[in-house]
Amino acid sequence: MTPGETLTAMRAARPLAHTITNYVAMNTAANALLAAGASPAMVHAPEEAGDFAAIAGALSVNIGTLSPLWVAGMKAAIAGAKGAGRPWVLDPVAHFATPWRSGVTRELLAERPTIVRGNASEIIALSGASSAGRGVDAGDAVDAAREAAEALARETGGVVAVTGEIDLVTDGERAVRIRGGSDLMPMVTALGCALSALTGAYAAVAGPFDAAHGACCHFAAAGEIAERGADGPGTFAVRFIDALAKVTPADVEGRSQ
Amino acid sequence: MTPGETLTAMRAARPLAHTITNYVAMNTAANALLAAGASPAMVHAPEEAGDFAAIAGALSVNIGTLSPLWVAGMKAAIAGAKGAGRPWVLDPVAHFATPWRSGVTRELLAERPTIVRGNASEIIALSGASSAGRGVDAGDAVDAAREAAEALARETGGVVAVTGEIDLVTDGERAVRIRGGSDLMPMVTALGCALSALTGAYAAVAGPFDAAHGACCHFAAAGEIAERGADGPGTFAVRFIDALAKVTPADVEGRSQ
Amino acid sequence: MTPGETLTAMRAARPLAHTITNYVAMNTAANALLAAGASPAMVHAPEEAGDFAAIAGALSVNIGTLSPLWVAGMKAAIAGAKGAGRPWVLDPVAHFATPWRSGVTRELLAERPTIVRGNASEIIALSGASSAGRGVDAGDAVDAAREAAEALARETGGVVAVTGEIDLVTDGERAVRIRGGSDLMPMVTALGCALSALTGAYAAVAGPFDAAHGACCHFAAAGEIAERGADGPGTFAVRFIDALAKVTPADVEGRSQ
Repeated sequence: MTPGETLTAMRAARPLAHTITNYVAMNTAANALLAAGASPAMVHAPEEAGDFAAIAGALSVNIGTLSPLWVAGMKAAIAGAKGAGRPWVLDPVAHFATPWRSGVTRELLAERPTIVRGNASEIIALSGASSAGRGVDAGDAVDAAREAAEALARETGGVVAVTGEIDLVTDGERAVRIRGGSDLMPMVTALGCALSALTGAYAAVAGPFDAAHGACCHFAAAGEIAERGADGPGTFAVRFIDALAKVTPADVEGRSQ
Repeated sequence: MTPGETLTAMRAARPLAHTITNYVAMNTAANALLAAGASPAMVHAPEEAGDFAAIAGALSVNIGTLSPLWVAGMKAAIAGAKGAGRPWVLDPVAHFATPWRSGVTRELLAERPTIVRGNASEIIALSGASSAGRGVDAGDAVDAAREAAEALARETGGVVAVTGEIDLVTDGERAVRIRGGSDLMPMVTALGCALSALTGAYAAVAGPFDAAHGACCHFAAAGEIAERGADGPGTFAVRFIDALAKVTPADVEGRSQ
Repeated sequence: MTPGETLTAMRAARPLAHTITNYVAMNTAANALLAAGASPAMVHAPEEAGDFAAIAGALSVNIGTLSPLWVAGMKAAIAGAKGAGRPWVLDPVAHFATPWRSGVTRELLAERPTIVRGNASEIIALSGASSAGRGVDAGDAVDAAREAAEALARETGGVVAVTGEIDLVTDGERAVRIRGGSDLMPMVTALGCALSALTGAYAAVAGPFDAAHGACCHFAAAGEIAERGADGPGTFAVRFIDALAKVTPADVEGRSQ
């Protein structure tokens, strides 16, 4: 499927996107999903996350504001998604920042996420190489992460998306680079988290490679549209939500190489 | 009281609105309350929620991102509110989605909320009838929920507000329908949750029927104002907060039948 | 350092600002930090908050939506910050509202925060005097809090910032008053919380007095810029984020007396 076809399929299905994300990102991710054309649902308690994953189209798990109770909910949701044959996305936010966070990430990774989405520093560190990253927003360029992304994709048997100025999607064999977006995107919090949530929505209607590719193209196109007339990161963030709704199939084609 | 009189009374009192809502909605609800003219306070821990409910004007409880610790806080807050003679609002978000959530909702409903506010799918499912709903944003039309809303109001002894393209408020005997709003409202997350919080603020200054009626009219008028010049769900959400502050008593009259 | 010099130093360092704040404020605080020129990180679990505090430039702790698990995380983070010689900021939101909240605040205060930032009602009540405050947004004027702020600064051995229409920063001996801001600021939730987070970022690059002074000047200037063309609290909040990025060293000078 081309990105335009994937976009059309996603909007037609309006998938129920089960999203377990951090406190900073929840509102942004829910509004991004709604604007893009999906149906968000934030359900995290171990008591119901597994049941809910089985009725959703896909699951996205983000470890930004991690705590043990949430890890239990993530594991219940992942088990529910896998049991029901649903794809799931892992966003390993700043997984290298503390020993506890690294350990949790290794446990989640062992569940073999359908798609991993992170920035270059996160993906490089996940593959075991050293990185210049220090926090949520960081440092390394996407092309520097290509080998790490391919190695990680072979390890999980899934797809890896590395996002930044240029995005890279790989399944360990083929790879595609996507251009677009805006220099203002790193100045707005939670856009990467929202992209992981949207990747989940796309994964409900397309194979993992096309899903990650489609979601990256959707964000890349929206970033370009939102930048026009933005007066800083505040107005950009608002216009970005408008733009997610405006993006057409034609807007997402021709960005990939 | 007419909706305009209720609005004037609410702004004059600037009620302290104790709001226990989900993580997605907290910021939106707090800004909506401030813009509308109330004073928001988000306090959820069992260790203090009961004490706080007794000093607030009213309580609003929303189950969106539920977990056992929060259920304990909700119950403490409800006990505090009831003990102090304060009204409380229940927003049963997607209560039918999992068995655990349904059970918690039944427990909260047994505490006889002063007002229940939900969408048509939620109200229909609460009354025991079957519904087309699947998630947070869903499906059934308000008029289809009228009988269910009346039955639920008689069960709780309180008021039920069903919101959607048209809103319906009933106490089981009389009913009022409110028109207004915007097609962009379902594209913005947490507006229903924010309306439940605002309904709490109104309940601090008016009887349950007038309170639910007044809050629905306030949102309906703000939706119309916000739509003018909006360029999508992002700009609409921002203008909606502006509009909540702009709405005049005249704006909320004449919407009801 | 003058406020302009502090601003320049903060942006040059792009400090990693460890922020433990309430659910309402997290997104706003993260976007405010990014726009202002810092790097936000929200990490709260006791399992990692201490480790993270040691790699961050400074810590900010806000008690808005308090619960026992979060208190444990705050204490771990404070211990980590102190052990690594990092400054930390306390924002005692509505600490007088319930007995449990007051007790927790006393425990945190006993850890001797480098900077305390609150509104006049909060600072007056912290010093043991009685106040007109009742909730998050409240009542007393900054000048009425001057004696209380000086007493509190002497008690903690740190700096106290009282913010409102006029801001006041004192270390118990000298004091500075800062003018600016906008009447719309109290109509937007979480701006005080975001200021506490930004005060942490400034404390990573300057002494406590200059840090609190610099952060207050940054917000005061941004408030003035944002008010121009705002159409209510919604558009103001968006423009305020834009303005935090726009503020120049010249904008923050000349506001203090």
